[in-house]
Amino acid sequence: MSIHPGDSLSQSTATVQVIRADAFGASRQEDRLAVEEPLEISIAHGPAAARQRHRIAVTMRTPGHDFNLAMGFLFTEGIIGYAADVVAMRYAANKGEATYANELIVELKSDIALDTDRLSRHFYTASSCGVCGKASLELVQTTACYTLRNGHPNFSVATLLQMPEKLNVEQSVFATTGGLHAAALFDAQGNLLDAKEDVGRHNALDKLIGAALKKEALPLSDHIVMVSGRASFELVQKALMAGIPVLAAVGAPSSLAVELASESGMTLIGFLRDGRCNVYTAPERVA
Amino acid sequence: MSIHPGDSLSQSTATVQVIRADAFGASRQEDRLAVEEPLEISIAHGPAAARQRHRIAVTMRTPGHDFNLAMGFLFTEGIIGYAADVVAMRYAANKGEATYANELIVELKSDIALDTDRLSRHFYTASSCGVCGKASLELVQTTACYTLRNGHPNFSVATLLQMPEKLNVEQSVFATTGGLHAAALFDAQGNLLDAKEDVGRHNALDKLIGAALKKEALPLSDHIVMVSGRASFELVQKALMAGIPVLAAVGAPSSLAVELASESGMTLIGFLRDGRCNVYTAPERVA
Repeated sequence: MSIHPGDSLSQSTATVQVIRADAFGASRQEDRLAVEEPLEISIAHGPAAARQRHRIAVTMRTPGHDFNLAMGFLFTEGIIGYAADVVAMRYAANKGEATYANELIVELKSDIALDTDRLSRHFYTASSCGVCGKASLELVQTTACYTLRNGHPNFSVATLLQMPEKLNVEQSVFATTGGLHAAALFDAQGNLLDAKEDVGRHNALDKLIGAALKKEALPLSDHIVMVSGRASFELVQKALMAGIPVLAAVGAPSSLAVELASESGMTLIGFLRDGRCNVYTAPERVA
Repeated sequence: MSIHPGDSLSQSTATVQVIRADAFGASRQEDRLAVEEPLEISIAHGPAAARQRHRIAVTMRTPGHDFNLAMGFLFTEGIIGYAADVVAMRYAANKGEATYANELIVELKSDIALDTDRLSRHFYTASSCGVCGKASLELVQTTACYTLRNGHPNFSVATLLQMPEKLNVEQSVFATTGGLHAAALFDAQGNLLDAKEDVGRHNALDKLIGAALKKEALPLSDHIVMVSGRASFELVQKALMAGIPVLAAVGAPSSLAVELASESGMTLIGFLRDGRCNVYTAPERVA
């Protein structure tokens, strides 16, 4: 079996030969896969004479928009606060057989205070109540730098219900592979402003937020973000970090996603498909 | 907004009031959510006089089957090899407000060699080719203790095509929340032997593998595992660790999932739904 990088969508898809089977028989076909490869994100930090390198994360991602992904990840994890905190970003020299450049080094401004506790997962906490949803919520809320404005933006149900189709038109790779999650940025009139795709739903959102951060467009306080899958705690947390007041998911939210949205005043929408949706929190933004 | 633990499905679901909206109007309804809470897994290790505690992971999971989850996670990460490597498992004392017991301490046999390198993510590697899919594949293959037997088990397409419906009947919580992934164990005749659910698909598979490990049923070399979502590298890696020869997913596989399955001789099936499927690798097991 061999996997060939795709042509027009060369970084994010690959083609394979498969056997398609149903009750009536089987046939050989070509199928297009979403590419998944590890990306290691390291940061270089400190005065030039004593620069230190820290491995921050390895994430399984779809190549493409790696710089946006790293920028968004560092921001939503609370490691950087502004695009200008990043002095330079480069791939490590590609040693040998890697198909893609998979080691990214992010050089931070030397005066950034690096909170090494923050570098471990954000729900690690020494709070008296131990590890629990409540501790997770509190930690997110002390980290987030934006607060959401009550009742803003205001938008109609009709605007919401049109979003899946607009994203579908845009999301060409998903249509061919079925294997990519998407995160899409809309304004309150329902215009699609940006969309990013990835095998990991958190990566798709980090790419979207990273791209906005680079444009100095944060907080995204007039916007609606739609994600293709379910809404987890992690997605709500990332949206909150970017000041996004409305998160809409095609799938179901989890209990902790609803709790965090509720406590933060974020409008969380689930099951946005087939001409309907559920509004879980802060419904006053929906006309 | 308040979230109430569900009744009959008390640990894994919670109910909330939502507003259901479509083009014709809006109404208040009750909705059932999948519970998501952090679980911290620590291991206690070493001679009693000098016992050390290591935090291994925090995973966002659905409460229920936590011991299976921890057992499966430690096994699929290569930290333990047998159920007997675990001497005891207990929750840390619940300090205060946690709704669920979320800190699990796993006591290992004192003579287990603890590879602290393994404790960081499995695709961290110092190999000469750096971080890449190929290094990830090689590391998994050196860690896995079972090899898959060519052409075994053998099963019909009809057996495969019946699995989604059988899982659907079993997967009661998914039906009510839409928010849980499932992993199901079938024999080669298509009988459903076990099924586990979680907000995280990797957790659902770890719960399934952990339950089999406790029954000393590994390797699962005569079996087929079906998962409700997409097939990622991580799922194929976990299946391989448990000696599972056939992995079938409702959704699409990623490129690296197909590569790892191909190199390991695992039969990987995708898009198993609506009376059809795609066989990506090792089709000789399918009659």
